[in-house]
Amino acid sequence: MVMPLSLLEKSVEKRISLLLKDGRVLEGKLSGYDEYMNMVLEETVETSADGDEGRRLGCVVLRGNNVVSISIL
Amino acid sequence: MVMPLSLLEKSVEKRISLLLKDGRVLEGKLSGYDEYMNMVLEETVETSADGDEGRRLGCVVLRGNNVVSISIL
Amino acid sequence: MVMPLSLLEKSVEKRISLLLKDGRVLEGKLSGYDEYMNMVLEETVETSADGDEGRRLGCVVLRGNNVVSISIL
Amino acid sequence: MVMPLSLLEKSVEKRISLLLKDGRVLEGKLSGYDEYMNMVLEETVETSADGDEGRRLGCVVLRGNNVVSISIL
Amino acid sequence: MVMPLSLLEKSVEKRISLLLKDGRVLEGKLSGYDEYMNMVLEETVETSADGDEGRRLGCVVLRGNNVVSISIL
Amino acid sequence: MVMPLSLLEKSVEKRISLLLKDGRVLEGKLSGYDEYMNMVLEETVETSADGDEGRRLGCVVLRGNNVVSISIL
Amino acid sequence: MVMPLSLLEKSVEKRISLLLKDGRVLEGKLSGYDEYMNMVLEETVETSADGDEGRRLGCVVLRGNNVVSISIL
Repeated sequence: MVMPLSLLEKSVEKRISLLLKDGRVLEGKLSGYDEYMNMVLEETVETSADGDEGRRLGCVVLRGNNVVSISIL
Repeated sequence: MVMPLSLLEKSVEKRISLLLKDGRVLEGKLSGYDEYMNMVLEETVETSADGDEGRRLGCVVLRGNNVVSISIL
Repeated sequence: MVMPLSLLEKSVEKRISLLLKDGRVLEGKLSGYDEYMNMVLEETVETSADGDEGRRLGCVVLRGNNVVSISIL
Repeated sequence: MVMPLSLLEKSVEKRISLLLKDGRVLEGKLSGYDEYMNMVLEETVETSADGDEGRRLGCVVLRGNNVVSISIL
Repeated sequence: MVMPLSLLEKSVEKRISLLLKDGRVLEGKLSGYDEYMNMVLEETVETSADGDEGRRLGCVVLRGNNVVSISIL
Repeated sequence: MVMPLSLLEKSVEKRISLLLKDGRVLEGKLSGYDEYMNMVLEETVETSADGDEGRRLGCVVLRGNNVVSISIL
Repeated sequence: MVMPLSLLEKSVEKRISLLLKDGRVLEGKLSGYDEYMNMVLEETVETSADGDEGRRLGCVVLRGNNVVSISIL
């Protein structure tokens, strides 16, 4: 069995894609996380629904309670 | 009596379907979960309401508080 | 006095109807529940507002925090 | 001083009216409650805003976090 | 310094006005409260935005998490 | 470093402006607060977005979970 | 690994940009924070989506549960 936080642990330094509750999608390199699934992303880019690159956001802290799902890229 | 988390335990490595609060439906193989019903899905596909296959999302972590219901397939 | 969880305990293996926050109504046999009112339903059917039978969902885990009310049938 | 849960205790076996977050109004006999203000109602009727009787729901468990206010009838 | 719960304690048996999250305004005599700011109001009246008196609700339990603000009258 | 609650402590008896989740803006003298950022305001005025003075609300208890941001004036 | 709160610690006295749940964007110097990600910003400016400067808000306390993401500038 793969626990959710274990998968995040294995994904540190890898690129992930986050779907937020407000519908935005962020892609970046996972630098860290905590038990609430708050996350630190680096080289973050906000992508549009059709996959085009959007705004470059750099280093970002995301609140876990705004995250719907996390895709490991 | 079948406790909700016991049913999830029995469903590991099986295909499940998740209805999310935002109305999206995800189908995939349950790899793991935690006490908050956060889940890890593999080979995840976002299906449309009429059952057509949609976007392939691969390996996904889902936050339990965005999940409405889980169907064991 | 009938405590809410005691009523659920007495309703195991009986048919119940759930009203969810998103307005959907599910009917099924209660297999189990936990202290958060997460529930396991079997032979679950999504019924429409006018009582017509709808989609058959089989075995379903429901998150308690999406449930508005539970009717014992 | 009358504590909220004390008032519920005194209201067991009496008729109460509940306003839910989704705007629905339920009227029934309070059978029990717990510390989260989850409640058990019997002979429950969903009344419309103008006081007309509506759907008979029988025995119902209500989740406290969907309740806005409780009127003792 | 006046702590929020101390102000409620001093307001027992006095008239208060509550603004709820759904925009409704209730006015009544505060009979009691608990640590979650659940409150018991007596002689409760639902007032409209322009100050006209509205529906008489009598004795009401209010869930603290639906309350935005409490005005001491 | 200035902790959020320390700033509130230093702001007691000073005028602050609160933005609430429902978009309303309240201005008043901070009388007290608790660990949940529930606050007591005196001489409270609801100001409109363009800065005009609006309804005088007097002494008000505000629930911290409805507050978005607090400006020290 | 960079924990979310560690990144905030390193960002004290630096400029950050906050996206709030209501869509507003605030930019200011981070003066402090607590374990709930409540934050104190100084020299806060509300910026519009296109990057133009907007209202100057000065010293502001922000409730962590209204924050979606924090960009380190």
